[in-house]
Amino acid sequence: MDVIEFAPTKEQYAWTFGGVDPILRIKPGTLMRLWTEDAFSGRLRSPSDRPGEALDMREVNPQTGPFYVEGAEPGDTLAIHFVDLEPARDWAASATIPFFGGLSTTERTALLHDPLPDLTWIYQVDREREVVVFEALHGDLRLDLPLEPMLGTVGVAPAGREVRTSLVPDMFGGNMDTPEMRAGATCYLGVNVEGALFSVGDGHYRQGEGEACGTAVEGAMNVTLIVELIKGKAPLWPRIEQDEHYVVVGSARPLEDAWRASQVGMIDWLRELYGLDRLDAYQLLTQISEAPLANVVDANYSAVTKVAKRLLPKGRAYGGMHRYLREQARI
Amino acid sequence: MDVIEFAPTKEQYAWTFGGVDPILRIKPGTLMRLWTEDAFSGRLRSPSDRPGEALDMREVNPQTGPFYVEGAEPGDTLAIHFVDLEPARDWAASATIPFFGGLSTTERTALLHDPLPDLTWIYQVDREREVVVFEALHGDLRLDLPLEPMLGTVGVAPAGREVRTSLVPDMFGGNMDTPEMRAGATCYLGVNVEGALFSVGDGHYRQGEGEACGTAVEGAMNVTLIVELIKGKAPLWPRIEQDEHYVVVGSARPLEDAWRASQVGMIDWLRELYGLDRLDAYQLLTQISEAPLANVVDANYSAVTKVAKRLLPKGRAYGGMHRYLREQARI
Amino acid sequence: MDVIEFAPTKEQYAWTFGGVDPILRIKPGTLMRLWTEDAFSGRLRSPSDRPGEALDMREVNPQTGPFYVEGAEPGDTLAIHFVDLEPARDWAASATIPFFGGLSTTERTALLHDPLPDLTWIYQVDREREVVVFEALHGDLRLDLPLEPMLGTVGVAPAGREVRTSLVPDMFGGNMDTPEMRAGATCYLGVNVEGALFSVGDGHYRQGEGEACGTAVEGAMNVTLIVELIKGKAPLWPRIEQDEHYVVVGSARPLEDAWRASQVGMIDWLRELYGLDRLDAYQLLTQISEAPLANVVDANYSAVTKVAKRLLPKGRAYGGMHRYLREQARI
Amino acid sequence: MDVIEFAPTKEQYAWTFGGVDPILRIKPGTLMRLWTEDAFSGRLRSPSDRPGEALDMREVNPQTGPFYVEGAEPGDTLAIHFVDLEPARDWAASATIPFFGGLSTTERTALLHDPLPDLTWIYQVDREREVVVFEALHGDLRLDLPLEPMLGTVGVAPAGREVRTSLVPDMFGGNMDTPEMRAGATCYLGVNVEGALFSVGDGHYRQGEGEACGTAVEGAMNVTLIVELIKGKAPLWPRIEQDEHYVVVGSARPLEDAWRASQVGMIDWLRELYGLDRLDAYQLLTQISEAPLANVVDANYSAVTKVAKRLLPKGRAYGGMHRYLREQARI
Repeated sequence: MDVIEFAPTKEQYAWTFGGVDPILRIKPGTLMRLWTEDAFSGRLRSPSDRPGEALDMREVNPQTGPFYVEGAEPGDTLAIHFVDLEPARDWAASATIPFFGGLSTTERTALLHDPLPDLTWIYQVDREREVVVFEALHGDLRLDLPLEPMLGTVGVAPAGREVRTSLVPDMFGGNMDTPEMRAGATCYLGVNVEGALFSVGDGHYRQGEGEACGTAVEGAMNVTLIVELIKGKAPLWPRIEQDEHYVVVGSARPLEDAWRASQVGMIDWLRELYGLDRLDAYQLLTQISEAPLANVVDANYSAVTKVAKRLLPKGRAYGGMHRYLREQARI
Repeated sequence: MDVIEFAPTKEQYAWTFGGVDPILRIKPGTLMRLWTEDAFSGRLRSPSDRPGEALDMREVNPQTGPFYVEGAEPGDTLAIHFVDLEPARDWAASATIPFFGGLSTTERTALLHDPLPDLTWIYQVDREREVVVFEALHGDLRLDLPLEPMLGTVGVAPAGREVRTSLVPDMFGGNMDTPEMRAGATCYLGVNVEGALFSVGDGHYRQGEGEACGTAVEGAMNVTLIVELIKGKAPLWPRIEQDEHYVVVGSARPLEDAWRASQVGMIDWLRELYGLDRLDAYQLLTQISEAPLANVVDANYSAVTKVAKRLLPKGRAYGGMHRYLREQARI
Repeated sequence: MDVIEFAPTKEQYAWTFGGVDPILRIKPGTLMRLWTEDAFSGRLRSPSDRPGEALDMREVNPQTGPFYVEGAEPGDTLAIHFVDLEPARDWAASATIPFFGGLSTTERTALLHDPLPDLTWIYQVDREREVVVFEALHGDLRLDLPLEPMLGTVGVAPAGREVRTSLVPDMFGGNMDTPEMRAGATCYLGVNVEGALFSVGDGHYRQGEGEACGTAVEGAMNVTLIVELIKGKAPLWPRIEQDEHYVVVGSARPLEDAWRASQVGMIDWLRELYGLDRLDAYQLLTQISEAPLANVVDANYSAVTKVAKRLLPKGRAYGGMHRYLREQARI
Repeated sequence: MDVIEFAPTKEQYAWTFGGVDPILRIKPGTLMRLWTEDAFSGRLRSPSDRPGEALDMREVNPQTGPFYVEGAEPGDTLAIHFVDLEPARDWAASATIPFFGGLSTTERTALLHDPLPDLTWIYQVDREREVVVFEALHGDLRLDLPLEPMLGTVGVAPAGREVRTSLVPDMFGGNMDTPEMRAGATCYLGVNVEGALFSVGDGHYRQGEGEACGTAVEGAMNVTLIVELIKGKAPLWPRIEQDEHYVVVGSARPLEDAWRASQVGMIDWLRELYGLDRLDAYQLLTQISEAPLANVVDANYSAVTKVAKRLLPKGRAYGGMHRYLREQARI
């Protein structure tokens, strides 16, 4: 297996999906050890940092990539298998950012309120106990929260000649912010341009579903992944396969449309896997769907539809790609 | 403990929250063994039944109740603890109903499409293996799905002199359709009128999150519950306490507003439990929230915010009411 | 023509659609001279009144009615023609109410902001110049705004045994808050219960489209109307006919669903009037629709679809009812 | 005044805002005579054309431009004054496109319905009578509809390094599809990149508010405009000034957020013009706003807030730019 290690310099960060020249060319089957900076570009380091001043909103969510995958053509499917997500620092940060977040007025949910206070929380990582430590800014509550690393942002160059900021999730993936994107998962993305041009970033040491305030426990991450290419079969919306679950992520506003997109995406997947009639798949999904929200923040919301494999007949998604990659990862 | 058994006749079904005289008066602390008819009023019994013809949409979701709780006054909190939910039949039904459901045009998401086909699925219950059996209408797929009984509808009379159909969820509870409403859970509802006038119904032998097609595995249910009364402390939105989780249910459209209501409701609850600052609670919830959707169907959508007790300091919601009721249930 | 005059005492106000005994029985064809109190129940009278303290939100939008229309049965259509709307006071009031309004966090668009300031604006009426006078609370801007009286609330008892607060618009009409409901207009509402039980209220001396802050220039009104009954033909959503326009009002959330309901409602009406194919009506409406929003406030949003009669062939809606009532009004 | 004439060849069409090299450099103050192709790229020419086959959705809404305006820097304001919009053909087309339109299931409002039929309507232009002729596909209804030319798409390169398809409206303008963009109007857009890089396209011979089916009476257009540059003062959302009205266009989903953005945008403008307090501006706008929807189609919805100048004190937006351009146009 080809192995590539890559950590971008600050000048090499990508801030968009599409619109950036590839930083590396790789062959399908390559294992990559990547480093990703945190979503704040490392600018929040102390509870005294004021996000409204410290952040430059044009330079958040730096991406590691994009990578050109040889042979990838529009209509193909990129499979990115996450072998390992390892926090690269002993601390992480979270914040409230003015006019940003699910429970705040924003540029689009435009109301007449003043912004909420902009505050920074710093979390210490305790690797031994596998926790991050929440410390209240007011009062003395401290809580150990399990370390559950995930990647907020995984995506390819968009279709239709578009270039999108790394803050946005959509059909091309992007800033989906779902805890389902964790070690052991395989993400399937439809390829829109030659070489696919995928990138990753926005590591979270943990995150709740919905990501209410808009920022998780944000930290630099060592990401180990394997890239594979499937000819054709591009899904409309990003799919994730885990050992135990099939997952589809829809991104849209209002939130019911994100959910609808993910549900219809799963109905399509169930039909591909089992030859089900559309209304039978609708009925079955109604009784077995899990629906843990991903993010309800700003530009686009992401909703997850998830089904447990144990409830279903044996399936072989993409010719058994996930199992194959799991085995490759163990080598 | 007072024990009451009650099964309504067809003439005794309630079709609304509010607007119906109480069928019984009970004292706080009463254990009730109730029977609830299925959401179709028992009218779908075979895959050959056409819901568009067989159903009368003015007579769906029949409620068992309402019950007048002595001493309950506006501003109080009703605690309903579900001791047991036991399927009362060996079969259950689900259906697609014309212009109804989350992935269909409806009266409000009004589009120009013809309705989807109206179909009925019948599920056999296998009590020994604790499953219901899905049978595809087209093709021969059969699947065992775990029996996971829950109640779709639990509510009190609404505020503001309103009377609402039993199809609608809102601040008064109602047709929330969340799988969190299962045996072992305690539901807290704010009281709006003297006697609270609560009722229950809409038993589901199982349901996926979101309840896409609008109907779960609908079946008659034997419901055992204990009712208690807490003076004052009425929550704005329904709360549920389980052994392992705190849950808040928000109901609104668009879906992001249902989610926002449930998130702010949980922030309020965390502040009550731990004296947290509002923004600290926002930050903490961002990292620990679970957000399994309840229903995205028609009149109002319901979103769930859920947090695991194991992540939090010891709390004593409502003076330890849930633990007390758990113990009462074991007597 | 039967003529009835009626002004309710405070004890006679209705606060809901449905759930109230009729205050009068009238025959179809009756001309009524009614008085309606303002939406604040007359409680805001000075810029020093603080709405958060002065208002009781359970007693806003008092209705004059309900009136039992003899012979009206479910499925029939009530036609209410507004002959005249005459301000009954020389002043009117508007206000910002905590957690209420289109550009504020509310119970449903639940965010973490403090409420906006609660303020009262008093408008003087200058009947001679036919204006109301806006006076800024800060600074000294004074503006004459044309007096354009309309009724915010016109409705019948809802279907499905429901009782709804007079703050809510829906299929039964209610608090639609559209400037289209002015003198010279005929409102068509589907009848849901025997006698229809219609009521009116919430006079506005003028209102912008969208009613952003949630309260118009609210004033007591002398309302002259004629009631007629059309057997059958109940429209799904409220319709309004003016000399120059056909209008349909849809109420739902999110706002696109209110708009969709009103658009499909108008497509249905165009098909009834001209025998148009559904897709031809869709195409035609796309090119001729006017879409002035009604209200984007709280419980339900109302969107208007409006088409100019001059663009269409001659039509005879409801057998020429509007023209007939216009003539009756002149007698 | 510099005068430039430009008609793009097919190879010169732009399909995005941003991401395209300028086709011409112009000085502020230039008068341009441009030709724009129709939104279908001229591919629909007969009622027998099936849009699902005839159209390539990657090549719709061709733009004429982008033009580099000398001296334009981020934070500046581009003023584009439309001197004249003149239909360039004697016919125009409209269509229903599969999975596209406000009353159809789409990729995002993802439901399980089959697409609506894809149909083409051809409108003949009668210049003498100044009408376009609607002809029903089923039945024989023919209607003269007034010719009311407007431009669907006016925009600059987006902020944040983004490139957006010409189908999308947002803060940079784009496919707003508002009938307010007509001859005599001045559009103010915030500049995001050096040279502004504006383009125009998507001429409509007429369009209803909301543009329900997603396509207006689409036709090639001769566009005469004057471009001016205002240093600084970039508005967040596109503004339009007409002789009689101020207009702000907000674009977002759900539709209430588009409306909120346009309302807050107008409150900001009123504050700039008259030094009004924010809540006074909220109150005033509530009573004088017009809110004619622009489009409720697909990727982003656009809502308009409009106020009549006659209701306001004399204002001098952007130093009287609109009046100056009106005079220039007459030279």
